[in-house]
Amino acid sequence: MLEDQIKNIIRDIPDFPKPGIIFKDITPILKNQKLCSDIVDEFVKRIKNLEFDAIAGIESRGFLFGLMLANKLNKPFIPIRKSGRLPFKTIQQSYDLEYGSATIEIHADAFEPGAKILIHDDLLATGGTVEATSQLIEKMEGTIAGYSFLISLDFLNGKERLQKYSENNFSLASYQ
Amino acid sequence: MLEDQIKNIIRDIPDFPKPGIIFKDITPILKNQKLCSDIVDEFVKRIKNLEFDAIAGIESRGFLFGLMLANKLNKPFIPIRKSGRLPFKTIQQSYDLEYGSATIEIHADAFEPGAKILIHDDLLATGGTVEATSQLIEKMEGTIAGYSFLISLDFLNGKERLQKYSENNFSLASYQ
Repeated sequence: MLEDQIKNIIRDIPDFPKPGIIFKDITPILKNQKLCSDIVDEFVKRIKNLEFDAIAGIESRGFLFGLMLANKLNKPFIPIRKSGRLPFKTIQQSYDLEYGSATIEIHADAFEPGAKILIHDDLLATGGTVEATSQLIEKMEGTIAGYSFLISLDFLNGKERLQKYSENNFSLASYQ
Repeated sequence: MLEDQIKNIIRDIPDFPKPGIIFKDITPILKNQKLCSDIVDEFVKRIKNLEFDAIAGIESRGFLFGLMLANKLNKPFIPIRKSGRLPFKTIQQSYDLEYGSATIEIHADAFEPGAKILIHDDLLATGGTVEATSQLIEKMEGTIAGYSFLISLDFLNGKERLQKYSENNFSLASYQ
């Protein structure tokens, strides 16, 4: 089963990026292109009934499978980046971190008002960055068609946090 | 011709990230998945005679076509990241910027000694980050099989700078 394959190949890194956190290292997946293809195929299967106009991928690891998925489905790919990285006119959204805050951006011409956007990232944890991305999309008068993650850490309740933006939220490997 | 298509769709952003620089914005390419597929096919055509074991993509924009290319060729993909982002044991390389310096990293188990690595990024400018990536590969006892870029700004002489690591250096759209 794909979920088991993903879980077996992911590497747990204790105390990264700080003490007490067990980080899910996806780099072993990237060494295995057969598995990468299976992951993209499974993403396609899960979202084939969703109606959406573009895929927004969150920097940096959301660029990996995000563009492959967009390409497979022939949908525009929209990069969501940290502040100061996108060169054209941008719309910004700040959000709180445990200490301090962060800002992400989208190009102001990334999509037309009314567009339905699928948001993609490699991992859903508490959902702070993903919620800020959702707010960016809504600021631009888009709607959230759904969320797709490679991994979700369900015990951090990110899915509950995102429910008000879209009921469609799936991950290929979830940890309870 | 693909080079013209790429050049026509790329957006020039004057004075980004600072006065006097004309930034090549590739985000319009990402909206056009037919063009993205053609780009990957052309990359494959250009490197099909190169012998290599893995593709190293430089964070963040080198993740975009880097993973697609690795997937198409069934080669492992190795992320090269800014300092502090890779969770496992890393090897580091610092390099000079115009003001100050930067450090990039690779996972210490990214490849076996003797492996031939193709380095990929979206854009070759002066080649500072790409040279540091080459030095990282050599520190790990790998060799550089070649370089693949979507765009090269040839007037900045990045290709000359990289010549001592590999003679194989190609870009799909170059600016003289």
